[in-house]
Amino acid sequence: MTITDSPVRLTAVDAPGQPTVTPELEALYRGLEAELLVPLWTEISGLMPLHPTTKAAAHLWRWDRLVALADRSGHLVPVGRGGERRAIALANPSLGGRPYATPTLWAAIQYLMPGEDAPEHRHTQNAFRFVVEGEGVWTVVERDPVPMRRGDFLPQPGMKWHAHHNAASKPMAWIDGLDIPFQYDVESQFFDFGRDAIGEQERTTPDRSRAERLWGHPGLAPVSAIGATTGTPLLCYRWEHTDRALDDQLALEREGYASTVEPGHALVRYVNPTSGSDVLPTIRAQFHRVARGAETRPRRETGSSVYQVFDGSGTVVVGDTLWSVTRGDLFVVPSWQPVSFASEAGRTDSDSGALDLFQFSDTPVFDKLGLYRSQEDS
Amino acid sequence: MTITDSPVRLTAVDAPGQPTVTPELEALYRGLEAELLVPLWTEISGLMPLHPTTKAAAHLWRWDRLVALADRSGHLVPVGRGGERRAIALANPSLGGRPYATPTLWAAIQYLMPGEDAPEHRHTQNAFRFVVEGEGVWTVVERDPVPMRRGDFLPQPGMKWHAHHNAASKPMAWIDGLDIPFQYDVESQFFDFGRDAIGEQERTTPDRSRAERLWGHPGLAPVSAIGATTGTPLLCYRWEHTDRALDDQLALEREGYASTVEPGHALVRYVNPTSGSDVLPTIRAQFHRVARGAETRPRRETGSSVYQVFDGSGTVVVGDTLWSVTRGDLFVVPSWQPVSFASEAGRTDSDSGALDLFQFSDTPVFDKLGLYRSQEDS
Amino acid sequence: MTITDSPVRLTAVDAPGQPTVTPELEALYRGLEAELLVPLWTEISGLMPLHPTTKAAAHLWRWDRLVALADRSGHLVPVGRGGERRAIALANPSLGGRPYATPTLWAAIQYLMPGEDAPEHRHTQNAFRFVVEGEGVWTVVERDPVPMRRGDFLPQPGMKWHAHHNAASKPMAWIDGLDIPFQYDVESQFFDFGRDAIGEQERTTPDRSRAERLWGHPGLAPVSAIGATTGTPLLCYRWEHTDRALDDQLALEREGYASTVEPGHALVRYVNPTSGSDVLPTIRAQFHRVARGAETRPRRETGSSVYQVFDGSGTVVVGDTLWSVTRGDLFVVPSWQPVSFASEAGRTDSDSGALDLFQFSDTPVFDKLGLYRSQEDS
Amino acid sequence: MTITDSPVRLTAVDAPGQPTVTPELEALYRGLEAELLVPLWTEISGLMPLHPTTKAAAHLWRWDRLVALADRSGHLVPVGRGGERRAIALANPSLGGRPYATPTLWAAIQYLMPGEDAPEHRHTQNAFRFVVEGEGVWTVVERDPVPMRRGDFLPQPGMKWHAHHNAASKPMAWIDGLDIPFQYDVESQFFDFGRDAIGEQERTTPDRSRAERLWGHPGLAPVSAIGATTGTPLLCYRWEHTDRALDDQLALEREGYASTVEPGHALVRYVNPTSGSDVLPTIRAQFHRVARGAETRPRRETGSSVYQVFDGSGTVVVGDTLWSVTRGDLFVVPSWQPVSFASEAGRTDSDSGALDLFQFSDTPVFDKLGLYRSQEDS
Repeated sequence: MTITDSPVRLTAVDAPGQPTVTPELEALYRGLEAELLVPLWTEISGLMPLHPTTKAAAHLWRWDRLVALADRSGHLVPVGRGGERRAIALANPSLGGRPYATPTLWAAIQYLMPGEDAPEHRHTQNAFRFVVEGEGVWTVVERDPVPMRRGDFLPQPGMKWHAHHNAASKPMAWIDGLDIPFQYDVESQFFDFGRDAIGEQERTTPDRSRAERLWGHPGLAPVSAIGATTGTPLLCYRWEHTDRALDDQLALEREGYASTVEPGHALVRYVNPTSGSDVLPTIRAQFHRVARGAETRPRRETGSSVYQVFDGSGTVVVGDTLWSVTRGDLFVVPSWQPVSFASEAGRTDSDSGALDLFQFSDTPVFDKLGLYRSQEDS
Repeated sequence: MTITDSPVRLTAVDAPGQPTVTPELEALYRGLEAELLVPLWTEISGLMPLHPTTKAAAHLWRWDRLVALADRSGHLVPVGRGGERRAIALANPSLGGRPYATPTLWAAIQYLMPGEDAPEHRHTQNAFRFVVEGEGVWTVVERDPVPMRRGDFLPQPGMKWHAHHNAASKPMAWIDGLDIPFQYDVESQFFDFGRDAIGEQERTTPDRSRAERLWGHPGLAPVSAIGATTGTPLLCYRWEHTDRALDDQLALEREGYASTVEPGHALVRYVNPTSGSDVLPTIRAQFHRVARGAETRPRRETGSSVYQVFDGSGTVVVGDTLWSVTRGDLFVVPSWQPVSFASEAGRTDSDSGALDLFQFSDTPVFDKLGLYRSQEDS
Repeated sequence: MTITDSPVRLTAVDAPGQPTVTPELEALYRGLEAELLVPLWTEISGLMPLHPTTKAAAHLWRWDRLVALADRSGHLVPVGRGGERRAIALANPSLGGRPYATPTLWAAIQYLMPGEDAPEHRHTQNAFRFVVEGEGVWTVVERDPVPMRRGDFLPQPGMKWHAHHNAASKPMAWIDGLDIPFQYDVESQFFDFGRDAIGEQERTTPDRSRAERLWGHPGLAPVSAIGATTGTPLLCYRWEHTDRALDDQLALEREGYASTVEPGHALVRYVNPTSGSDVLPTIRAQFHRVARGAETRPRRETGSSVYQVFDGSGTVVVGDTLWSVTRGDLFVVPSWQPVSFASEAGRTDSDSGALDLFQFSDTPVFDKLGLYRSQEDS
Repeated sequence: MTITDSPVRLTAVDAPGQPTVTPELEALYRGLEAELLVPLWTEISGLMPLHPTTKAAAHLWRWDRLVALADRSGHLVPVGRGGERRAIALANPSLGGRPYATPTLWAAIQYLMPGEDAPEHRHTQNAFRFVVEGEGVWTVVERDPVPMRRGDFLPQPGMKWHAHHNAASKPMAWIDGLDIPFQYDVESQFFDFGRDAIGEQERTTPDRSRAERLWGHPGLAPVSAIGATTGTPLLCYRWEHTDRALDDQLALEREGYASTVEPGHALVRYVNPTSGSDVLPTIRAQFHRVARGAETRPRRETGSSVYQVFDGSGTVVVGDTLWSVTRGDLFVVPSWQPVSFASEAGRTDSDSGALDLFQFSDTPVFDKLGLYRSQEDS
């Protein structure tokens, strides 16, 4: 079993908690290297820290620059089988140039030119789309055309066939979120190619998807399809509902009733109507509204998040970093880093002055495995 | 321990499977009576039948007669502490004159005169209201005024404080469903009296309850109140949503997609948004729409149901009994009795011709205890 | 719909909270009777009490009298198809002579003469056997012969085929517990006859059942049969394990560690190894050991229990009733009645002086339906 | 936000499914690098393969070499605060010299000299110990001393305080399994130091732990500690039970009853008695017995496993690799690699000839997140 080119390299160091450096210790370390063995005592502080010390960095990407590069790709890079999607992923600067927004999450801008189709495929990776601006693309999930419009959130559980179709006369951009890094780490991936072109029937552009017609009525389940599913059967969560839910929370707060998570901070979670739990087995998605003039308390939790500013402007503080943010900007909050938000007064009277933030995170992984913790910093 | 007036009475009979009638057997039976004992061999066929042989009868109550009697009560019977509610319950003709629609379910018409209040109380019995006609009453649950209008379904889980307030200038009637007989049988009941009068703030008549503002947005949960609850936190399921969900199912069916439970038979279940399961721990509530000209297959299940015709007219067959039914009529389907429905063509062109039926049942009890069975008769 | 012989009988009474007795009210009541309707205001105090006011009585049956009558039955009553079992049920004196130990539970002594077989059948009613004395009978569940010996608890989930076979030269008695009254109330019963005689292979008398060989190893599950089941797959819980678990709890308590439910009161619950929950979907089974000289605090809970004294002697207090109890005695604790136990000092030095009590109850029904409450009286 | 030293490096290549290499494309790629962006179309085949293509290698470590190196460490490396444990981890040759047996699992040999203590700490990482030979160490979990002997499996859920104490006159070795790589990837780790020395009371060497006395009785739960816990409360699964459970499966198979997972292949899973599910939230542990002369079918599943040969000898095939294995040998099966085992005829008549294999894997992660798949190869 001994292999001559062992990748293991051990260095005896003279340090507290470490064995005395002697020729015998050096010989032992050479023996361990030869046998593909690594001691705990040289590794423990890195592997088992006192609290999460993330490999990732807090980082911000500006929406205008992303859109500009995506648009250039729209003219240079075809969409088709093989490449599959014109998607450009955020690469966290501390993760070695890999296309990982965080250690577990993929976040990308996807871009489709007028008339283009992205070919059909399916995969175990759980995915969603979120639309910060534009409309005109229908995502076709299990042959059900789902319109995408500003503010809509479109989850797509693993192994659902899907394609995209731009039926409009203008390009459209949106963001994709997936658990690609997580599934790459644990090695659970399967992928199947589907039809190269979607059918004529799927080129129709209905106002509501079939999924919404079955599952989009509040508190009502179709008995023909009853039963809890791992991922949500509701393929689109419309902006008009999200917006109203957030407004209702802030109005209830003003009327004196418990409704927000803290003063001026409305928060809704997108949930699977068959179970009330997260929309995707590995991804949580939420929407924050920070009222005009409000500021949230710093809060940290295990696991990482990606946020996109949906509307308004304000400031975000992650650890020691502060950003001024505005519509479309994307930023990352690594594990156990404190984050807080503040809205900026609206520039005009008609502006609500609220800061609207879409968030997705890997929290369900932590929740289901008994690893979730959170803390409010004073 | 021997008691002289034992309620046990045993009769030795000369029948197959029974012991020979002898003086010794008679002496044994007297001994058993004295010791408060009963043999299985004399009781087994009644207690352990081959399939459920219900104690209840299929029965129909006409809405117009109920309303007439309720209205007369409105003039003769005050609403107040002690009597608590002006509610008149269906008494199944085979259940000994007890106010039981079925062996487990209570169904009543409740009636409130203009300006009247029904006093606040709470109880372990799970309850709901369903409105077949009228409006103007607000049910005040946990101090949250909830408007009641035609087609609305208003569940109210056990131990929630509640009162009713008629803010209109006309009387209003609706039906109440509760698990009173079930809780009477198993002996789980608690009851507390609340305030004699609701507060001024609860006399407001908002268009939407606070519960709806928090929980009534499809697929969206307020993070401030996240977590599964035994009973639903959504206190009103509005008719406009139910109606649209049923229409959508029938339209999808016409377009060629699976959506109904059988041809022409749309069916939605009211569910708890925190879990996707039944709205109340002991009561299932559903709404059927039988399209113009459609007829459902006879189907039986363990457990009993009460139906109310919400709209349209048609025929209902339960076992050997057939009724012509119309708006407001209430009927009972006992355990393991086959039931089917047929709509009657609308009388005018503008009439949809569909038969709309509200149903509630004790199915969650069977589901959770491993006792549920159903069967379609050919 | 009007029926001439309505079972409904309403009486107008002059009492607080009741409407004024007038000719009009009498006419209304006659109208309600004719239409099979009953007001809430005349019924509420009985149907919806402030707390459970049980229909049952606390009652005690002496084991020696039960065995004497069972033995007489052994000589007079054959066991065979039709009567099915030589079982004699406790009839609670307050439940009208019905064979109900409590409103939901059946408890009976079953008796089998040497060489006798009880024929095979199955039913939705959940059942168990518990052996206070004797041995020699094998219960054959799903063709798996399971030996029965003093102290053994043998659950048998609904719809499992079962027969009994006395392989010994002496009669044997044991107790059966079932949810017969509960299933009679909710109307969920199915029953099938099996083979009239068990096969030769099932007449073998192995020391351990196949169920125990698969599922009887602590913390170990057979991967070939993995997965949660509604009722337990373990068909026998042996006395040696129960006894040791109780001894361990009392020893740990003496060593200063939390282990008992209160000082001197060891308590174990029989659980389904596939889920850790109750062995049967409607019945909880537990075993109490009250150490020499110990006395338990009065405790009440929703739902009813039947206890059998397994060993030792002592006193039991249920509400206002006190009994001196000894081996084999059976008693009933109705819903919401406080119960406490005290052991009696052993008569000899070798006697442990502990009071051992087997208990079964309908608690899972309350637990699963959100109706469970308990309280310790000071 | 632009950073000058971007870690992103993109290479335009002339290949099917890739955009034409032009100066404009090169300029786009430079722009993406500057903005920390990576296209999907250059990464998809590596990140989203058709099926898991593991980063890890199948590899075998020989027990005698591990023990020899561990023993040398025993003489050179002290055990104490800082290094915490004298544990030496398997480093998969394809994982870059990191101390990872698989992408998610840590496996190490731990070694304690006579009289030594390993200091108390706790961490979110879930852990277990398994003993292939020797005895004399007590692991002290939450101040409960648990003896470790050949064949025992000792799980220890995250955040339980623990220390180890060698009370014998000889060194002792065992293996540790943890989810260190998984928690490192997702960044969920917390770690606390405990007391430097365990108390005198914890130096006692009881034959059974308190955990076993409370939870080690088959099918019996202590009511004082009832309720499902994330990790198992049973801290030791004794060899005598595992051995008997495996023997019982093979004996039942010989008698003609379904009990094994395939002919000659007995398999038990260690489970949490409070829930029937896996002992640890992220780790599954199982024990295989391959009967004399039996051979298992190749089987693959998502997720990775580490095996240790507990007894007997035989051959193992993982993908294209075949090993002859014997007592103590450890080997790794990466995700989606087919594995099969064959026992080798015993060398003497008294030798059972069976191959006994302890296995642990990351399967609960896949199960809970909807990512589990398995397949039998023909």
